[in-house]
Amino acid sequence: MEKTDVLVIGGSASGIIAAVTAKSYFPDKEVLIIRKEERVLVPCGIPYIFGSLKSSEKNLIPDGGIKKMGINLKIAEVVSIDKEEKTLKTKAGDEIGYEKLVFATGSIPVVPKWLKGAELKNVFSVLKDKVYLDKAIKKLEDCKKIIVIGGGFIGAEISDELNKCEKEVILVELLPHILNLVFDDEICQKAEEILTERGVHIRTGVGVKEIIGDKKVSGVLLNNGEKIEADAVILSIGYVPNTELAKNSGIKINEKGFIRVDEYMRTDDDPDIIAVGDCAEKRDFITRKISMTMLASTGCAEARIAGMNLYSLSAVKTFGGTIAIFATAFGDIGFGAAGLNEKTALKEGFSILTGSFEGVDKHPGTLPGTNKQLVKLIASKESGLILGGEVVGGSSTGELTNIIGLAIQNKMTVNTILTSQIGTHPLLTAPPTKYPLIEATKVICKQMRKK
Amino acid sequence: MEKTDVLVIGGSASGIIAAVTAKSYFPDKEVLIIRKEERVLVPCGIPYIFGSLKSSEKNLIPDGGIKKMGINLKIAEVVSIDKEEKTLKTKAGDEIGYEKLVFATGSIPVVPKWLKGAELKNVFSVLKDKVYLDKAIKKLEDCKKIIVIGGGFIGAEISDELNKCEKEVILVELLPHILNLVFDDEICQKAEEILTERGVHIRTGVGVKEIIGDKKVSGVLLNNGEKIEADAVILSIGYVPNTELAKNSGIKINEKGFIRVDEYMRTDDDPDIIAVGDCAEKRDFITRKISMTMLASTGCAEARIAGMNLYSLSAVKTFGGTIAIFATAFGDIGFGAAGLNEKTALKEGFSILTGSFEGVDKHPGTLPGTNKQLVKLIASKESGLILGGEVVGGSSTGELTNIIGLAIQNKMTVNTILTSQIGTHPLLTAPPTKYPLIEATKVICKQMRKK
Repeated sequence: MEKTDVLVIGGSASGIIAAVTAKSYFPDKEVLIIRKEERVLVPCGIPYIFGSLKSSEKNLIPDGGIKKMGINLKIAEVVSIDKEEKTLKTKAGDEIGYEKLVFATGSIPVVPKWLKGAELKNVFSVLKDKVYLDKAIKKLEDCKKIIVIGGGFIGAEISDELNKCEKEVILVELLPHILNLVFDDEICQKAEEILTERGVHIRTGVGVKEIIGDKKVSGVLLNNGEKIEADAVILSIGYVPNTELAKNSGIKINEKGFIRVDEYMRTDDDPDIIAVGDCAEKRDFITRKISMTMLASTGCAEARIAGMNLYSLSAVKTFGGTIAIFATAFGDIGFGAAGLNEKTALKEGFSILTGSFEGVDKHPGTLPGTNKQLVKLIASKESGLILGGEVVGGSSTGELTNIIGLAIQNKMTVNTILTSQIGTHPLLTAPPTKYPLIEATKVICKQMRKK
Repeated sequence: MEKTDVLVIGGSASGIIAAVTAKSYFPDKEVLIIRKEERVLVPCGIPYIFGSLKSSEKNLIPDGGIKKMGINLKIAEVVSIDKEEKTLKTKAGDEIGYEKLVFATGSIPVVPKWLKGAELKNVFSVLKDKVYLDKAIKKLEDCKKIIVIGGGFIGAEISDELNKCEKEVILVELLPHILNLVFDDEICQKAEEILTERGVHIRTGVGVKEIIGDKKVSGVLLNNGEKIEADAVILSIGYVPNTELAKNSGIKINEKGFIRVDEYMRTDDDPDIIAVGDCAEKRDFITRKISMTMLASTGCAEARIAGMNLYSLSAVKTFGGTIAIFATAFGDIGFGAAGLNEKTALKEGFSILTGSFEGVDKHPGTLPGTNKQLVKLIASKESGLILGGEVVGGSSTGELTNIIGLAIQNKMTVNTILTSQIGTHPLLTAPPTKYPLIEATKVICKQMRKK
């Protein structure tokens, strides 16, 4: 029987980082990654193979780095785990022993079996599977009119990419707005305006009753009775944790389907079994409620924590809950969010103050390539603690959102940000006199003084 | 006699922010800004009027905002201050009384009187003066070959801008590298490579002995005896605080020429006289030594602190010293720094560890418009406290530098960053698996474990 010290199931972002961190902190241990896929796609890059990248070949995670570190790699499907014996079995019949087992099995797209017509030809899901997606993209080449069902990040990004390829794209979203689970309504509206301007047709507040067609898709029937013709349909209505194997192996799964873990990412009843990434339970950083957030970046943070604590717990390195930190971009315009938005904060029962400020992302704003930059902050009314933030701006949106993320994770108040020194430069940032993040805190501080 | 509650001398970034903050926190007080200039240039935008902006008209600070807030504005030159009577006099003979007086008189370029030929025609300084600069730019139009003396930020930026306008530009710097007071040598070299590639001729490690010419510049004579011909010379060898008026009014000036202030930006011996921006004393955030750093963004942070504390001190809002947070860009490539660099930290006697990592600023790196992204961190060997950081990258460099700045100001360690959740997106940031800021902390953490 083959044997390794650390065995990681899953070779995407979180699996790789768990393996790399484990090898780095415990170099004497043997580390093995088992994954099903011959070649692994960069998960967040998937929407871009539908357009900008043109091919999945340009969106692959290279294996060179892990091999160079001396991490072993095996292409195989794990079919069962024996927790008592500390072994697992592969589909090919191999048995492998482990000291520490890390689940990084990720997530799979929701396939709506209740939706009539979902099995028709030219209906595609956004599986994180190179072979499947290569075929889908090939077929989409001949399609002129494509309906994307689900206006979350993936649906909106794929819509924008297909639109770039001269396709007629209709994006259908059941909620009142696209990206509505992440952003407050006024930010969602901005995203809709930009996507519409770029040529995507957006239909919100309406669900899909049925996908119609004879063998092959011919269109969809909406809940309101309207029919829209189409040559293809892309389903992007969310992901669920891939935890079937864990469940079958007797590992505790929470009510949302995630593997239950502690602050060191260890499973509830077996400290030698760990879970990281989309398959692992996440709690909200602020409310401590179970969170549905699935992000490669959060997965990597968890994987680092897991790897560091694998053989020896460190009190300072625990995972404090997800701050749900996101970003996306359509053309030159970026959208970012971290922590709670206004709607969610109110729903959770927080007494809050909000501050929004729109300025420019270069200065003076007459410089070529200047974009508007909007920052909205949500803070506790009593303490000024920053609970969340949203950003709309140019190419610096991602890192500006990370500034807000760092503030949330380190429990900063609006006063801390208001009195912070920020660096500015004409070509790179907003002006020092009207830096939207600072101006947004000013709006909140002013309300706090009036109390 | 005219009278106001708050009187601000100086109408650039720091003066405006001091006035605006004072009015916002103490709306019942009357606030007056006195400035010499009819129209005020955006200070950090000045290098860009030599190229990208094409005109100083596009680089003006509008007066609309301050007027809308009910702040009064007077164009006049202050010639004397009577601290006892709490009044000042203008050149036109007006006398104005105040309760609180804020110096925001900024800085003026070093004019090297010791340098022979500095008085010749077509020798220009980078005065923050619209009328002067408009004339200089007009004259430069007819010049083909221009020597810029001094390779700090302003000199390097102006060189790049003039180069954009098809001028032959020679940048001369006495130190071994351009930008050498801010960045470590390997980063300076990258800046030199990029500027050279863009067409600027760089001469480092050599000083200027004399500017030669008969009435008008014909070239410069270097310390090594070499002569370079030129049609014009731009002097950018630094700025000194503009504190002549303060000094003449009996206000204490430190050994470097700055107005001495406390943590609330109040002068040492008169709590009703305040100083902010380039004219105000700055201490280094980490070493507490007197700092020569002059930055509009730091000035704005000081001005906010000063404005908030003007009539009532708040313990939580003090200015903790400058973290010297900068950024600049040449073409698509940004350079940023915050806190101490390696060289300075060693010189100050710190035991340090450094970590550098170069990755990409989009992911996968095959996406169009991807730039390399390098992060270097400097941390205390004993505690892992982050002392400084340097960034080279694309358009997100400014905000990424601000993340490091926030970490320094909040006394974070490499462990805090290493276990942070950062948000990533293909079009906006480095990948979650190889985010250079996190990877740089990993390099340091690994060295700490080996101790």
